[in-house]
Amino acid sequence: MSKTIQRTLKGFRDFLPADKVSRDHVEGKVVEIFRSFGFQPVETPTLEYAALIMGKYGEEADRLVYTFEDRGGRRVALPYDQTVPTARVLAQYQRELPRYFRRYAIRNVFRAENPQKGRYREFRQCDIDVFGSADPLADAEIVACTYFAFRHVGFEEPRIRLNDRRSLIESLEPFATDAVDVFSIIRSVDKLDKMRRDAVVAELASKGLDETTAQAALERIEAAEPSPELQAILRAVHGLGVPEGAVEFAPMLARGLDYYTGSIFEVYVPGFASGSLAGGGRYDDLIEQLGGPKMPAVGIAFGFDRMVEAAVHFGLTPSGTGAAEVLVTLFDGATAPAALSVARRVREAGIRCEVYPGLDKLGKQFKLADQKGIPVVLIIGPDEAAGETVTVRDMKSGAQESVPLAELTGRIEALRSSPGTT
Amino acid sequence: MSKTIQRTLKGFRDFLPADKVSRDHVEGKVVEIFRSFGFQPVETPTLEYAALIMGKYGEEADRLVYTFEDRGGRRVALPYDQTVPTARVLAQYQRELPRYFRRYAIRNVFRAENPQKGRYREFRQCDIDVFGSADPLADAEIVACTYFAFRHVGFEEPRIRLNDRRSLIESLEPFATDAVDVFSIIRSVDKLDKMRRDAVVAELASKGLDETTAQAALERIEAAEPSPELQAILRAVHGLGVPEGAVEFAPMLARGLDYYTGSIFEVYVPGFASGSLAGGGRYDDLIEQLGGPKMPAVGIAFGFDRMVEAAVHFGLTPSGTGAAEVLVTLFDGATAPAALSVARRVREAGIRCEVYPGLDKLGKQFKLADQKGIPVVLIIGPDEAAGETVTVRDMKSGAQESVPLAELTGRIEALRSSPGTT
Repeated sequence: MSKTIQRTLKGFRDFLPADKVSRDHVEGKVVEIFRSFGFQPVETPTLEYAALIMGKYGEEADRLVYTFEDRGGRRVALPYDQTVPTARVLAQYQRELPRYFRRYAIRNVFRAENPQKGRYREFRQCDIDVFGSADPLADAEIVACTYFAFRHVGFEEPRIRLNDRRSLIESLEPFATDAVDVFSIIRSVDKLDKMRRDAVVAELASKGLDETTAQAALERIEAAEPSPELQAILRAVHGLGVPEGAVEFAPMLARGLDYYTGSIFEVYVPGFASGSLAGGGRYDDLIEQLGGPKMPAVGIAFGFDRMVEAAVHFGLTPSGTGAAEVLVTLFDGATAPAALSVARRVREAGIRCEVYPGLDKLGKQFKLADQKGIPVVLIIGPDEAAGETVTVRDMKSGAQESVPLAELTGRIEALRSSPGTT
Repeated sequence: MSKTIQRTLKGFRDFLPADKVSRDHVEGKVVEIFRSFGFQPVETPTLEYAALIMGKYGEEADRLVYTFEDRGGRRVALPYDQTVPTARVLAQYQRELPRYFRRYAIRNVFRAENPQKGRYREFRQCDIDVFGSADPLADAEIVACTYFAFRHVGFEEPRIRLNDRRSLIESLEPFATDAVDVFSIIRSVDKLDKMRRDAVVAELASKGLDETTAQAALERIEAAEPSPELQAILRAVHGLGVPEGAVEFAPMLARGLDYYTGSIFEVYVPGFASGSLAGGGRYDDLIEQLGGPKMPAVGIAFGFDRMVEAAVHFGLTPSGTGAAEVLVTLFDGATAPAALSVARRVREAGIRCEVYPGLDKLGKQFKLADQKGIPVVLIIGPDEAAGETVTVRDMKSGAQESVPLAELTGRIEALRSSPGTT
């Protein structure tokens, strides 16, 4: 066999149990809410024709796409996001999919970025989208579902900033010049929440907008009122149960991508510094531009990795590693059948349980429990096997007690819910 | 934007909601049992250094690996199975992982096979393995966990065929010749469950083994008794709660891969024709051969796609598509707030619910429910909004009834559990 490179590919990650347990936990919570809103799951493959992926988001994006020729001479690519494959699905299965199709899709996507802190070449996106409706209610369902998904993960105060990209453009268009188009103004205005006001004015001036015009543009934006469409979205969002303070009108919010045609929104979690955890909006032209059918759409992508990071930061994920909660030790050959039958009983009660693999000194068996963080160890020796009891050892305190078989699972449940006491 | 190829890459699949719901259901069930046995989750990336993947399973396997040069000039590859990346993980994180590490890993793997019926280039594997123990108890935990995973998915009589590859080799070695080595004999003997006995003898003869020797070899295998190791595994498997009939000694079972060093096993489901749904065994030398540390190991890989196929065949998966169970219709602008508040209430009760996106004729709104297979539709008009009631329409029968708001979710739950009645 060939000499082996024993490390993870640069820019990629392994998830060992502690991380993986956290990720699965967050994903499970998010999916529960997606489902409760009637979003249906769709999964697209890990390879697509490169002609589908390339040329969709400009040259810069194309340079980040993983693409190669397969053994059959086809040019193929790993997905860069989920929107392009979804546009394909909408085109390809047009007749099978219902009107107002609402779907969630969770998968890893790939970008050959320069790996920096927190930037990986494979990362996970959770998308929800409603296709076919141009009504503000569709936007509101996306925003409300997002809010409740963050709440369900345990974030106490998710904040959603909301703007209307069309009215943003309309407001700023009068200030555009031949040298500085409206999108360039928008890109600077978008920095108002991160940069001082005069720095934004200076940036606009450096682009070629005179200071008076720049000031006027900012004043115009700061005085903006929510558009009628945004007002309808906000009303519906609150009607769906999102509290008043959780969604705020953010007149300077622009979001990077130029394909949004109406509402745009971003999710923040106060106390977690690294920017937005999810972002989306209405994109009524994009599906057709991507080769899909002509249909309005609104949706959001959760930056799953950053969301998990935030959840870990706030202690919202399980502290465990998914290891067993109970280790059944083996005393000797004669009592092994009784021990195995105890393991079966514990598992049937929904308690995670591992049997020590083989006969060994009891001390060594305890050591394994310690190493794996297994809080409860069961000992079934000759006395226990004969008397239908089990010796239960609390690994934290070292205390042991004899528990009748019939009371065993109840006792274990009590132990795991009050760690440190026996 | 470039002209777009609007189809799925050859050999790859999209999973639309009905399929995806079935797959997620089966995976969820399997994971519950994996966890109850204390298996901890690990996830490895979708790209690895090609030097890790290539040259591990022979030239034929190498030809099936998706490999390419990335933009940084690195030779990379998509995983061909989960064992090789796992060997890397065991080497790389040796100090962080506990003794007797038991992990589950579920991911898609990639093989550039000629796509045939049921053969795809991207498919899903669910692996459980116990590392570090050579004790039959580890084998038994794998076998028992597998049995209960299949049971938990709903298969009534999963059957596990079990053999000891080492004793199979020892039994047949005396019949090997210079022309026909023991592995060649084993490959023919392995066909005894699919081919007639005389056809197997003929095949051995065509390989160069005289008929008397071939007959003697078969008789030797047919008369074989379980090795002491297999007997220990069988005892422990039954001790862990697997019924007597579910695991059978299969003296002619060989399994294809040459790296097994002890027990080998395969799972079948009676009444489902397409062969084994899972297979594994003990491979005490492989992890080291793959570049990992020297450690005994035993495990099994579930062919997830085939398992889902079998589950669908036996009607063990949900019939739905994950669409909402309840559609909240919109009557007019004045009653919309009441309707949204009903949607919120329904969702909070854990019932999947969709709000019709916008004002529309009621008939059109019903039509959407029909198209999506949503069984219950709620109507909140002025009378309902004023009287704190909801009109509940059973889409199957078309019957409508007025239900007080306080009784709504109970009524919906009754409706969804007894379809067709109101």
